[in-house]
Amino acid sequence: MYLCIINAERVITIKLTKRQEEIIELVKKNQPITSEKLAEMLNVTRAALRPDLAILTMTGILEARPKVGYLYSKRSNNSLIFEAIKDIKVSEIKSKPAIVTEDTTIYDAIVQLFLNDAGTIFIVNNGYLTGAVSRKDFLKIAMGNSDMHKVPVGIIMTRMPNIITVTDDDLAFDAAKKIIEHEVDSLPVVEKVIQEDGKELYKITGKVSKTNITKLFVRLGEGR
Amino acid sequence: MYLCIINAERVITIKLTKRQEEIIELVKKNQPITSEKLAEMLNVTRAALRPDLAILTMTGILEARPKVGYLYSKRSNNSLIFEAIKDIKVSEIKSKPAIVTEDTTIYDAIVQLFLNDAGTIFIVNNGYLTGAVSRKDFLKIAMGNSDMHKVPVGIIMTRMPNIITVTDDDLAFDAAKKIIEHEVDSLPVVEKVIQEDGKELYKITGKVSKTNITKLFVRLGEGR
Repeated sequence: MYLCIINAERVITIKLTKRQEEIIELVKKNQPITSEKLAEMLNVTRAALRPDLAILTMTGILEARPKVGYLYSKRSNNSLIFEAIKDIKVSEIKSKPAIVTEDTTIYDAIVQLFLNDAGTIFIVNNGYLTGAVSRKDFLKIAMGNSDMHKVPVGIIMTRMPNIITVTDDDLAFDAAKKIIEHEVDSLPVVEKVIQEDGKELYKITGKVSKTNITKLFVRLGEGR
Repeated sequence: MYLCIINAERVITIKLTKRQEEIIELVKKNQPITSEKLAEMLNVTRAALRPDLAILTMTGILEARPKVGYLYSKRSNNSLIFEAIKDIKVSEIKSKPAIVTEDTTIYDAIVQLFLNDAGTIFIVNNGYLTGAVSRKDFLKIAMGNSDMHKVPVGIIMTRMPNIITVTDDDLAFDAAKKIIEHEVDSLPVVEKVIQEDGKELYKITGKVSKTNITKLFVRLGEGR
């Protein structure tokens, strides 16, 4: 079992000591159990156990109940979440999106996709997001009989509001979840603009793709 | 600052207490500092500080030097890694690869790619991995003049040994790193087989893609 500490500056990891692991096992088997009893079973003084018990209760592995003793905590098994991952915002991991206008031919849109080394191209009209086309969509079209040099990308794109979006303040975790749940490769990062007539439009300010998430995973693994 | 504990069963997170954060700040400013001095500055007894100091030294945030006092630990700033992520093996996250033989036409290979909803198709010959073709490669071919119904996929594939591979025992972290460094979407998980003539061949047992890494990230974020 590992303990790790994460803040903006650094990631630290330590392993629980052999004695702490022993304490957990003893509590699991004999709960509720007092610190006197634990000290006796481990053949140490109660004072010697105090720091270990402090760590194990503070971290929620054990629960200390007054006049009862220590219990192995069950609450941590399900609902607690990995806060460190949940601290990272979309704005911290987004990258530059590949963008073309609706009247661009499919062929030229694919060229832009390659030039940007992107998996999805986003389509705008008057500066606002109107659609998206993925490599997979393009490949389907390329296998058919469309004239890629003539048909505009606007004809084949997935159109708003059928595009899953995120905002700068969303969590990277939620973006990853949307990517998996909706089976897409990339999400546009948008800013909502409400028009005078009440219509909602979206400016695209970036994208979050599986590549961004994989890079974040590597960054976390490197402790950066 | 958060503390989290990770093992096979669960992920737990807690926040350091306000007092623990205060202790860190005091040590940063006044190091080396004794526990007596810290107790005095915080206006509490030394005994009351003991569990906090135990947690802060055990986790490596503070260093306790006998006869000197507590120091803010620098070692943790750089080299320590996120062990939890580093515990997950490729075998735990790999999924089923889409596979065709070398003589499959490009068209049929693309159909298999779609049927498997895969980003990369792997090519085998006599059961051994010989190549790979990505969606991007297929899209390039589709934009050219090749007859996709006639040309076999073996002609256009990236050929071994130019394919980056991983094994079951490699870390998910290292797979993610290879994906980013080599700018590929998916890696075949292989098992090396040494032939009688000393030739090395590779059986493909799975794949690890950006999708698998993104799913793992979501799983970690959910504390599963």
